[in-house]
Amino acid sequence: MKESEYTIGIDIGGTNTTLGIVDEYGRCVKKSNFSTSACKDAGEFISSLVFSIHGLCSIDAREVQPLGIGIAAPAAQYREGIIQSPANLLWGTINIAEMLKQHYDLPIAVINDSNAVALGEMNFGLAQGMENFVALTLGTGLGAGVVVDGKLVTGENGFAGELGHVIVEPNGRMCGCKRRGCVETYVSATGICRTAFELLASELDASELRTVPYNELTAKKLYDFAAAGDILALKAFEITGVIFGRMLANVVASFDSEAIILSGGLVNAGELLLKPTLKAFDKHVLASLRGKVAVLPSRFSDGEGAILGASSIVNAREPVYASSGYETHEGGKYA
Amino acid sequence: MKESEYTIGIDIGGTNTTLGIVDEYGRCVKKSNFSTSACKDAGEFISSLVFSIHGLCSIDAREVQPLGIGIAAPAAQYREGIIQSPANLLWGTINIAEMLKQHYDLPIAVINDSNAVALGEMNFGLAQGMENFVALTLGTGLGAGVVVDGKLVTGENGFAGELGHVIVEPNGRMCGCKRRGCVETYVSATGICRTAFELLASELDASELRTVPYNELTAKKLYDFAAAGDILALKAFEITGVIFGRMLANVVASFDSEAIILSGGLVNAGELLLKPTLKAFDKHVLASLRGKVAVLPSRFSDGEGAILGASSIVNAREPVYASSGYETHEGGKYA
Repeated sequence: MKESEYTIGIDIGGTNTTLGIVDEYGRCVKKSNFSTSACKDAGEFISSLVFSIHGLCSIDAREVQPLGIGIAAPAAQYREGIIQSPANLLWGTINIAEMLKQHYDLPIAVINDSNAVALGEMNFGLAQGMENFVALTLGTGLGAGVVVDGKLVTGENGFAGELGHVIVEPNGRMCGCKRRGCVETYVSATGICRTAFELLASELDASELRTVPYNELTAKKLYDFAAAGDILALKAFEITGVIFGRMLANVVASFDSEAIILSGGLVNAGELLLKPTLKAFDKHVLASLRGKVAVLPSRFSDGEGAILGASSIVNAREPVYASSGYETHEGGKYA
Repeated sequence: MKESEYTIGIDIGGTNTTLGIVDEYGRCVKKSNFSTSACKDAGEFISSLVFSIHGLCSIDAREVQPLGIGIAAPAAQYREGIIQSPANLLWGTINIAEMLKQHYDLPIAVINDSNAVALGEMNFGLAQGMENFVALTLGTGLGAGVVVDGKLVTGENGFAGELGHVIVEPNGRMCGCKRRGCVETYVSATGICRTAFELLASELDASELRTVPYNELTAKKLYDFAAAGDILALKAFEITGVIFGRMLANVVASFDSEAIILSGGLVNAGELLLKPTLKAFDKHVLASLRGKVAVLPSRFSDGEGAILGASSIVNAREPVYASSGYETHEGGKYA
């Protein structure tokens, strides 16, 4: 019997880092995670990472040697292997590929986290066989990975697909990117909480939300309030869905995608978010595309899409790698 | 001396149809045009077209045999060779490739007019050698052709790149597409006139515009008023530029393009439009892309980009064709 081939996929988030060891069929056979924010500097973070990878490589009491390590991170620059001081990581710009290479004599590649999710869906998820789709992740922000003609759209400088930073409200809400009115300030786990607080100010309905400080409100809590019938919490989902549906209409006017695949914490709200979203999408989509675009919640469990996608960028075996269309010849991608 | 190779490029507009015969260096050596709207049906239109093509093929008192005919038209479906009853042509859906084939035993291909402009820029214009750019045409509407990794983005159904129909103002102005708030209702030759009339209502400044009926105002007249110092006309350009600049910021957040190439009647306003556009673009563009995107008025004379681009889709010689990345294997493109 042929032995399995494994790769490591890592998803670095501002709060947690999750990682897994993935077999050649795209199954994440073992996972682990640690607190990113508890690491006081990049050195400590790398130590934690090496420790976790070591743990993953022990499968069924046997040590396995992975083929490579793929890393998904916010603001990752796949052409240079670096993570460029993202807003929610406090280490400044680090060359994570170089740092890890001191521990492993393996191919190591870096990719933007939202693009990793898109590759995960394309290689192992709902987008298998699709040529044109967009993967959106509604977490703290609104991340996007765009695939056109079977290939990830990275753009001239590696910054394409920043769909969460499309401005939908001139002079709107302040965004982490220092501009105002980006769609992620409305459509994300944090955006919906901001909408809830706007409603507390504009409306007079009684609401359990009036007892919660801003810093303690989460999308999950908001969901629980809405599920219990809280009028303002319900309204926050309704408003978010309307803005989201309009955004999806704009996305398909740009890309004419076959499908939009949704993941991230806020998507766990299910129908509460999806119903108003699909209604607004159907209302606003171009007539020529009405009924032609599938809006699908991902089937991956939380964060697994990014791990699988990250693992696939160092997996050189044909079907997985080629279908990703992810080019490696651009020098500097492998550390 | 090798004989020149020619192709015919046709740009069908709602008012006029312009066509030219193009040599292998992308020079439009002879041009003609006729009134589209004066043709009472598709049959009469085809007759006018055949007559005009005949005229173009007589060069220096010599009959030349073109290699093919490329047709740019609004709402053209390149996969099926048909023009799908566009709003401003009154013939319903016609298979123009089939109709012309009864007159010519030549490869005949059809392409969306905005995509033709992008191919014209890529093969013969300012975008030569560029891998990622967007061509925008500000005429009656706002057309767009998007090139990613050297290839035209057509999307799943051939409708990608409808950037003029991105909704920027929920419940905004009525658009020809039957939806409200599309950016082309603000940023186009007609959009700026609508803005001028909005200003007549909202402001009290004296203005020559107050003597002109809605049906008689054109972007050219508005330009003349502005050049003569009319306050409201100037303000209309200012407002249009601000909306346009914000749109460009959103376009590069999506595509991370190296350049945006502008053509169409409204662009002839020059600095009057470009100055506020570039200012707003610089203000709203993502910090990671600031200073990295060239916004360039096309060097083609009016309408020539579409003719050149249309001619290039039936030109099978390597450099032009291959660099266009325009695929022909999708069955049905050639009539």
